[in-house]
Amino acid sequence: MSEVSIRRLAVIGVGLIGGSFARALRAAGAVDTVVGCGRDAAHLEQARRLGVIDIAETDPAAAVHGADFVLVAVPVGAMAGVFAAIRDALAPEAVVTDAGSTKLSVIAAAETGFGTLPENFVPGHPIAGTEHSGVDASFAELFRERRVILTPTAATGPAALARVRAAWQATGARVTEMDGAHHDEVLAATSHLPHVLAYALVDTLARMAERTEIFEYAAGGFADFTRIASSSPAMWSDIVTANESALLPVLERYIADLERLRAAIAQDDRETVRACFERAKTARDAFVGDRSDSRNDT
Amino acid sequence: MSEVSIRRLAVIGVGLIGGSFARALRAAGAVDTVVGCGRDAAHLEQARRLGVIDIAETDPAAAVHGADFVLVAVPVGAMAGVFAAIRDALAPEAVVTDAGSTKLSVIAAAETGFGTLPENFVPGHPIAGTEHSGVDASFAELFRERRVILTPTAATGPAALARVRAAWQATGARVTEMDGAHHDEVLAATSHLPHVLAYALVDTLARMAERTEIFEYAAGGFADFTRIASSSPAMWSDIVTANESALLPVLERYIADLERLRAAIAQDDRETVRACFERAKTARDAFVGDRSDSRNDT
Repeated sequence: MSEVSIRRLAVIGVGLIGGSFARALRAAGAVDTVVGCGRDAAHLEQARRLGVIDIAETDPAAAVHGADFVLVAVPVGAMAGVFAAIRDALAPEAVVTDAGSTKLSVIAAAETGFGTLPENFVPGHPIAGTEHSGVDASFAELFRERRVILTPTAATGPAALARVRAAWQATGARVTEMDGAHHDEVLAATSHLPHVLAYALVDTLARMAERTEIFEYAAGGFADFTRIASSSPAMWSDIVTANESALLPVLERYIADLERLRAAIAQDDRETVRACFERAKTARDAFVGDRSDSRNDT
Repeated sequence: MSEVSIRRLAVIGVGLIGGSFARALRAAGAVDTVVGCGRDAAHLEQARRLGVIDIAETDPAAAVHGADFVLVAVPVGAMAGVFAAIRDALAPEAVVTDAGSTKLSVIAAAETGFGTLPENFVPGHPIAGTEHSGVDASFAELFRERRVILTPTAATGPAALARVRAAWQATGARVTEMDGAHHDEVLAATSHLPHVLAYALVDTLARMAERTEIFEYAAGGFADFTRIASSSPAMWSDIVTANESALLPVLERYIADLERLRAAIAQDDRETVRACFERAKTARDAFVGDRSDSRNDT
């Protein structure tokens, strides 16, 4: 039924992404046993009750024991600690992948945690998510038709890469490969920057005296524009810090462009304002279109 | 059936808003005859074929002749010209309202166009719309459960105000009143500023060399965040210029806040970043919630 067969899957971090990965592989008939690992036992028990995992473990080393496939889906700031914790418990043939939104920082975390970059380690990033988090929000179809970017390191072996690719394909995702640094630049522009802008806008308005009234008159466009500002602050402050070097140049560029647009508005330079709006509409209509469906990238 | 009864409605500007207003009043059984006015005869003929209007007129004075209710739904920059054109053709009892996204500029346009502020002129703004425009996109339910803000002038008479209020209520809208200057400040924050930010972001990314690839990896969150950048550039450059005095202070405030956030990211000041994200999420979850449905404010 499926081109990938996982005997024992260990998911470290059973939230929206980890939970949906387990559900999707189960739905595809691609996995026998799912071990879920997290720090909160009650949360894990909930994942077990939902049928997302079969076995709950709070110790990462115990969770990966005997696993042939490991997905680490914890906040990017927690990756190094997890890699260090599972290092000595991993079976030699086990492949390890992650779901972090930044890749150079996760590769650095792997080097720190494992002591070296393992042949069986395949960095990855599913570009899927919603503004909701936690295993309760997970669902088997989350990755269907979504992109997953794998960013193999120089040490990554072809067999591990093929296996991780096949697992993501079994979830319905479209898998591509990219250099880690390039991934971080692309995602800084399309995901990390918009999150920063949305959080900053809601915060600016929330600190204004008339905030209650302001939000009362906000309509659908505002709700769409700020939806990503309902994403997890812990996860996103982590991502922004982890991808600082790719994010800062595009953020600086945006601030400079916005400042120029502000000056044009202040000078009643309608042509400059309109030309900017025209270019934007043309680009969005051409490249983004109407494929939105209220899901978020993360 | 309806508390308002319009014998002959003149809609100047039969686009998304004007067309939806006519459709909604017709659906409510509140209007006998709809005269549509626009510069493009083919477009008007299309509105007639769709059943949105009964009579097409390209001359505003001819369109309002004999009308007891006039809605001016043209871009805010075109309001003064329309008011001047209909001034001498209006019946004394006809009430005139508009659907402009800014109110002080429309009130000034009325003073210019009419020569004085008429008792029967009621400035208004339906906070409803989609990123699509034109009569083809109009529908009778556009205003249902949406807010309409009326900003009566010192000259506005109570009978005219009541009539315009009743007409909007017949479309299913929730009507409130507000001072024109206050309206412009509130809308600058929740609608005009987000549009400027969204247009600026797409334009910044579109001018980057890797733009095709960048947009290729943009997911649902990006599509939501930038949906308003697919709105009409002509209309929005008009709105931004018309509401410059209310928009600039909040835009400047946002740029300053964003600059502080950038500095915090650059200095690895995670606590400042996270505190901003936390405040934003708390405010959005409390005030905006999940009432979005991919419609836009305009």
